[in-house]
Amino acid sequence: MSTLERLEQTIAARRAASPDSSYVAKLNAKGVPKIAQKVGEEATETVIAAVSGSNEELVGESADLLFHLMVLLNAKGVSFDHVLAELDRREGLSGLDEKASRTE
Amino acid sequence: MSTLERLEQTIAARRAASPDSSYVAKLNAKGVPKIAQKVGEEATETVIAAVSGSNEELVGESADLLFHLMVLLNAKGVSFDHVLAELDRREGLSGLDEKASRTE
Amino acid sequence: MSTLERLEQTIAARRAASPDSSYVAKLNAKGVPKIAQKVGEEATETVIAAVSGSNEELVGESADLLFHLMVLLNAKGVSFDHVLAELDRREGLSGLDEKASRTE
Amino acid sequence: MSTLERLEQTIAARRAASPDSSYVAKLNAKGVPKIAQKVGEEATETVIAAVSGSNEELVGESADLLFHLMVLLNAKGVSFDHVLAELDRREGLSGLDEKASRTE
Repeated sequence: MSTLERLEQTIAARRAASPDSSYVAKLNAKGVPKIAQKVGEEATETVIAAVSGSNEELVGESADLLFHLMVLLNAKGVSFDHVLAELDRREGLSGLDEKASRTE
Repeated sequence: MSTLERLEQTIAARRAASPDSSYVAKLNAKGVPKIAQKVGEEATETVIAAVSGSNEELVGESADLLFHLMVLLNAKGVSFDHVLAELDRREGLSGLDEKASRTE
Repeated sequence: MSTLERLEQTIAARRAASPDSSYVAKLNAKGVPKIAQKVGEEATETVIAAVSGSNEELVGESADLLFHLMVLLNAKGVSFDHVLAELDRREGLSGLDEKASRTE
Repeated sequence: MSTLERLEQTIAARRAASPDSSYVAKLNAKGVPKIAQKVGEEATETVIAAVSGSNEELVGESADLLFHLMVLLNAKGVSFDHVLAELDRREGLSGLDEKASRTE
């Protein structure tokens, strides 16, 4: 099983734990806006690490961002597979020239 | 090969293309701060989709966020594997109680 | 009249203009999530300017952030005076030791 | 003296205090990237309040955003007057049609 698949399963399992023993459960108890807020915070930290930090910091912040994105998707009942399928779909659309399928 | 591995290879290949024909090349030509800015933008769109949009919008914005995060990592010379390894490391650390390995 | 009071009046007046001739009207036609998205974008640009740009860039991005924050407040029917009153209230609360009135 | 002028003076004064007694001093001790991070966080909270919260929450988050923006400007040695002057300059440029002076 891949890292992200395992992470998704772990998050789903942790969500049912007590908020006292699990960070995932604690975040879910606070609700979707609070989880979304964490995604925003980790994105800002990723941005700062990319423009002024070390690559080690960028790796750590990217991991935090991915982790919280997966907690958010789980809280909204969205499987990570749907996000991967959407990336596959775009890849397929883009073919030789990705630009045609994107609008900025 | 997984979706994200393939996406990472595609991004690396596109980066060498002409900025006129490739969105990835165009972003790289603008530099890391501009790519980081896109990560911040997509994170905000993900946040908005999560708190006030549909799950379909959330999937689309999450895909955009992941895509631009991978463009950013590539531009900084960081392999996505390093991010996955960091997630694995934390998973291992957390054991039965994830909370012990996290500081909020 | 101060700059921000005048800006608030200008935004209110522009909002009634045609989206073809006014950026403020155009943003309002797109709705609150789109205006909020612009606030998020300008905040990210302000962050990037602060950590890796020039002070001139920081001034420009801060002006963009303030402008879009005021467009957002106007779109939500919130007077900027309420925000200033909240800042006054906190200042009053903080007295000699601001820290007592803040929780991080 | 206006609220924002007074706030700017307060921030400048607090910065010299002990990090133990002053939140502003504590933030400055952590450095510009940490202050910028707070601006990003408060912007995300403002976005969430605007799209899914009450106007009272929006007022509170906007006050937090403005406060941290002013701490950031102070930390970078940028007077808030420069930001206001930039807003005045754009207002002057825009005249009857703001759109001409903006590029999106």
